[in-house]
Amino acid sequence: MSNPSLLILAGDGIGPEVMAEVRKIIGWFGDKRGMAFDVTEDLVGGAAYDAHGTPLTDETMAKAQEADAVLLGAVGGPKYDVLDFSVKPERGLLRLRKEMDLYSNLRPAQCFDALADFSSLKKNVVAGLDIMIVRELTSGVYFGEPRGIIEEGNERVGINTQRYTESEIDRVARSAFELAMKRGKKLCSMEKANVMESGILWREVVTEVGKDYPEVELSHMYADAGAMQLTRWPKQFDVIVTDNLFGDLLSDLAAMLTGSLGMLPSASLGAPMANGRPKALYEPVHGSAPDIAGQGKANPCACILSFAMALRYSFDQGDEATRLEAAVEKVLADGVRTADLLNDEGITPATTADMGDAVIAAL
Amino acid sequence: MSNPSLLILAGDGIGPEVMAEVRKIIGWFGDKRGMAFDVTEDLVGGAAYDAHGTPLTDETMAKAQEADAVLLGAVGGPKYDVLDFSVKPERGLLRLRKEMDLYSNLRPAQCFDALADFSSLKKNVVAGLDIMIVRELTSGVYFGEPRGIIEEGNERVGINTQRYTESEIDRVARSAFELAMKRGKKLCSMEKANVMESGILWREVVTEVGKDYPEVELSHMYADAGAMQLTRWPKQFDVIVTDNLFGDLLSDLAAMLTGSLGMLPSASLGAPMANGRPKALYEPVHGSAPDIAGQGKANPCACILSFAMALRYSFDQGDEATRLEAAVEKVLADGVRTADLLNDEGITPATTADMGDAVIAAL
Ligand SMILES: CC(C)[C@H](C(=O)O)[C@@H](O)C(=O)O
Ligand SMILES: CC(C)[C@H](C(=O)O)[C@@H](O)C(=O)O
Repeated sequence: MSNPSLLILAGDGIGPEVMAEVRKIIGWFGDKRGMAFDVTEDLVGGAAYDAHGTPLTDETMAKAQEADAVLLGAVGGPKYDVLDFSVKPERGLLRLRKEMDLYSNLRPAQCFDALADFSSLKKNVVAGLDIMIVRELTSGVYFGEPRGIIEEGNERVGINTQRYTESEIDRVARSAFELAMKRGKKLCSMEKANVMESGILWREVVTEVGKDYPEVELSHMYADAGAMQLTRWPKQFDVIVTDNLFGDLLSDLAAMLTGSLGMLPSASLGAPMANGRPKALYEPVHGSAPDIAGQGKANPCACILSFAMALRYSFDQGDEATRLEAAVEKVLADGVRTADLLNDEGITPATTADMGDAVIAAL
Repeated sequence: MSNPSLLILAGDGIGPEVMAEVRKIIGWFGDKRGMAFDVTEDLVGGAAYDAHGTPLTDETMAKAQEADAVLLGAVGGPKYDVLDFSVKPERGLLRLRKEMDLYSNLRPAQCFDALADFSSLKKNVVAGLDIMIVRELTSGVYFGEPRGIIEEGNERVGINTQRYTESEIDRVARSAFELAMKRGKKLCSMEKANVMESGILWREVVTEVGKDYPEVELSHMYADAGAMQLTRWPKQFDVIVTDNLFGDLLSDLAAMLTGSLGMLPSASLGAPMANGRPKALYEPVHGSAPDIAGQGKANPCACILSFAMALRYSFDQGDEATRLEAAVEKVLADGVRTADLLNDEGITPATTADMGDAVIAAL
């Protein structure tokens, strides 16, 4: 049998730097744990636009469909701000999500003990925080039609459509309930059913799916109240499930609670392929950070932990994933810090490569 | 000339209790400052539904259109959860906003010195915080058509429409720039122009309006990044302008940063009436809090401060507004605390009426 395949799309800004460290980790798992991967690299985002005039070529799209897992770095940068909407770096990422049908976006917001001081929140509010946000990723206002800027009377009108079918809600709800079963068995669904009919349907379908998971304690919250409660006392949550747009805001908010964006991974999962593995894309929550790109300052941990999620969710190697996660925690506990994890100007920060090497050493 | 008119819609839950304190304050301004108002009371929300089978009658709507200012308490409660969407308490509030065309919703997020410890955020992050969120309130996904739950193939589909015209964006942007001119001359506009065409138009129009306010430093942020930055370091902001739905989440988030929801007022303003006053509705940010309703536990300050906003924005009595705000601050500084402002179970909290009386005494 051939090795499982990984498609690496390092993308823009700090993407290539942090991905270089992930490649070291992948190499280590091949050498030391007998888990060899066939790795291919390709372009996405601004990098693809520079080379091909599109943020994702059809060839790359086809490779992503074939891969056992895609690892993505980051997309975007100020250089591309002037581009037309249709070829902006983000479109490459959105096309991957949509065409691979990656409907379930898992965004853990975990506060690392060694970093709890980094949060803008009080330590007791965030220490030990461990929540999982499941964001619907292929529908809603991100993809609904009609959309665009039209002329009406004497003026322009900007239009987008929030649209959710029962089956779209059903499948992402199921993935959230499944996760809740493996965790604390608590699920909170967030929408604006008091204002939006799509939210009413969302609440109904999630409630219905919940009947198949009687062990999971299901609650519902309006998304605005959700934003408040995440800020007030985030540890009340275990798993949260919400739509694409609310998930975008709420997962970023939850990420920021931890105080260390540079640490947070994500997984975007779709339906099982012929080999039983889900379609999958893994990426750090942080962006392309153009201001520090190319300087060896970026923290590779989020990207490394995204690979750990790949081990867990694509390759059924939960123990190896835990090993990698523990290595990252050890490195933090040992005090290795990239610049983003330091407040004190006096300390010389670890470089991106130092951090990658430290994780290898800890493994 | 007749006295200016106030329509009081106390609504549900703690609405009537907190409004009773506002009536004392209104009385004080009449007796002691020669500012008499003609006050009428009517029903909204669940209270209106109970009496008339609708959360807002046409008669009440007409009175609101005539009033110089509307003061609203709160709407909603679990008792009404079973009602059809079209007659839920919230619809009364949404109808008021829409038919009075209250497009500019001002939501200050201010951290009171005496209460900074209440925030879940570190004291240095929130002490002295004073930001103003201007939320568009009459358009966007809250009101866009088509909307509803339709049948398609074998399943239901929930649909809502995000829709913004240039003139809708223009007018709320202008009100935000005007506010910025009176404050720190910094305005940050938030949308998802990287994903939504309505956000692209939003950004364009706000930028265009900005040319009329060269003194205001204008910036743009994606709403997800906005949620992060509000959490990380909220003091970077002065005025924020955003759409109805993002404003719903972001203003609640900003409110929660201060740690004392029971303190936060809001104003919803429309176009000037024949007498030059804007159409206006004032309401606390907090909800109807059914769990404590009728027990004299509610904090009336948010509602009292909403009346202060009415003095400032409807009646051009900025000095009297400041007087009232100072009285509330003094009461807090003196240590008067309703239950929501106390962590220590050992201390007997002030009742709703105690707090109102203390404000009167401080005046
Ligand atoms: C880059 C952007 C298109 C994307 C989104 O809005 O989904 C990002 O914010 C994210 O959350 O992954
Ligand atoms: C009660 C509800 C309809 C309302 C809204 O969503 O606008 C509330 O959350 C608010 O922010 O005033």
